[in-house]
Amino acid sequence: MATKPTTVYLVGAGPGDPDLLTLKAHRILREADEILHDDLVPSAILAVANPAAAVANVGKRCGAKTMTQEQINARMIQSAREGRKVARLKGGDPGIFGRMAEEIDALEAAGIPFEVIPGITAGMAAAASLGISLTDRHKSSHATFVSAHPARHDGEDVRPDWKNIVHPDGVLVIYMPGSNHARLRDELIAAGLDPQMPTALISRASTAEQTIQYTTLMNLGRVPPAAAPSILLIGRSLDRASRRQRAPELSVLIDEATSIFSHR
Amino acid sequence: MATKPTTVYLVGAGPGDPDLLTLKAHRILREADEILHDDLVPSAILAVANPAAAVANVGKRCGAKTMTQEQINARMIQSAREGRKVARLKGGDPGIFGRMAEEIDALEAAGIPFEVIPGITAGMAAAASLGISLTDRHKSSHATFVSAHPARHDGEDVRPDWKNIVHPDGVLVIYMPGSNHARLRDELIAAGLDPQMPTALISRASTAEQTIQYTTLMNLGRVPPAAAPSILLIGRSLDRASRRQRAPELSVLIDEATSIFSHR
Repeated sequence: MATKPTTVYLVGAGPGDPDLLTLKAHRILREADEILHDDLVPSAILAVANPAAAVANVGKRCGAKTMTQEQINARMIQSAREGRKVARLKGGDPGIFGRMAEEIDALEAAGIPFEVIPGITAGMAAAASLGISLTDRHKSSHATFVSAHPARHDGEDVRPDWKNIVHPDGVLVIYMPGSNHARLRDELIAAGLDPQMPTALISRASTAEQTIQYTTLMNLGRVPPAAAPSILLIGRSLDRASRRQRAPELSVLIDEATSIFSHR
Repeated sequence: MATKPTTVYLVGAGPGDPDLLTLKAHRILREADEILHDDLVPSAILAVANPAAAVANVGKRCGAKTMTQEQINARMIQSAREGRKVARLKGGDPGIFGRMAEEIDALEAAGIPFEVIPGITAGMAAAASLGISLTDRHKSSHATFVSAHPARHDGEDVRPDWKNIVHPDGVLVIYMPGSNHARLRDELIAAGLDPQMPTALISRASTAEQTIQYTTLMNLGRVPPAAAPSILLIGRSLDRASRRQRAPELSVLIDEATSIFSHR
């Protein structure tokens, strides 16, 4: 008689600090027989796993895939059918730029039960580190989570539709901002965003390696790329953080309009 | 000699399930001397507090404020100066429609150190409950978090600028959708959103009282309001959830185009 497959857990690892795991994610990681994780999940989070668990990095490393999506799907399905408790661990929240939809489709097609455990997404961890509210009654009516990584359609790179995404009263929370900040600045200004808009690039939010670089959209091209995962926040509700940062006791380096500093 | 004020923690309570608290939020709630919480934080989360802690509801109840914003600010500042560990507990993530900016301004003006602890926002918990990804490589390039609650400017109610917010490739994550679903439908269709767009209203995501109502934008006017906190999700990446929901074993009640069911 075939045994009933176990539930596959699609788990948000949060932004990097193990203290920002949810209680539920923490428990599932401790109990899982098998953990299939994305590349950017830090070792401090994998250290939560049961020492007897099989832990595999199934992510992309510098663009090179260690496993194809089909292989990941097949492994989750096989392990669930064998009665193993599988945690598919994704950085941040699994439903925000986590490519979860394909995996859910495969699990559903195979009749495998699944549960999604939300996590703290990097954009919200970045805002928390800056001490700002993404939405603000007076400065920001909405926040848009968008990836600057181009989508591929019919073999062509399609850039985000910035003209219909940017808004003077919104905050942009840009995932995967890439290394060409000058091009991104040009696209956003061409789409109508105010060049004076306060901007912050946050790398590895919530971890000991966190860095924050404050600037304006106009000067974004002069900000060097930061280590992944990084988040670019742009909008008026960042006024508070950049004002605070300009206080002399906090400034480490200021050049004309762009100031760069890092703190924990 | 004046003692150094303690740090005030602005803490995200998550969507309602205590299991979705972060480890950090859980520890701060257990250690706090004083917890000032919004109205919609459920008792299961307040039960985490140290029994000796002072726990006060400082939120709005049916529009009536138990404390003004100024009173909340004054109390946080006084308690921090007296060396008490204060947790200011907000539903979901404190930086998403949590009115945190005013409190941070007051703490900064008073020279009180603070730390923001991010939480799982209701919109992400709702998507997780539906088993969908808010962003999707093929269906949804971005997700916009917006409140349908009108902003008051100069004594007038200002509705969201839907025309410049809706996007065929985006997912709308609408907080405080209100009770007038027909009006909201009319506004969104007038702004250009496809009347056939899959739509779901999720109330009390992640809790035992969770309900999910699937419909299309066109039929949103026929969906009765749900208990707060509720989230309205609209966009093509909901296709998967609504397709799954139409499977006969899950449907409890179907009327023509609007189907309503609740599950845990």
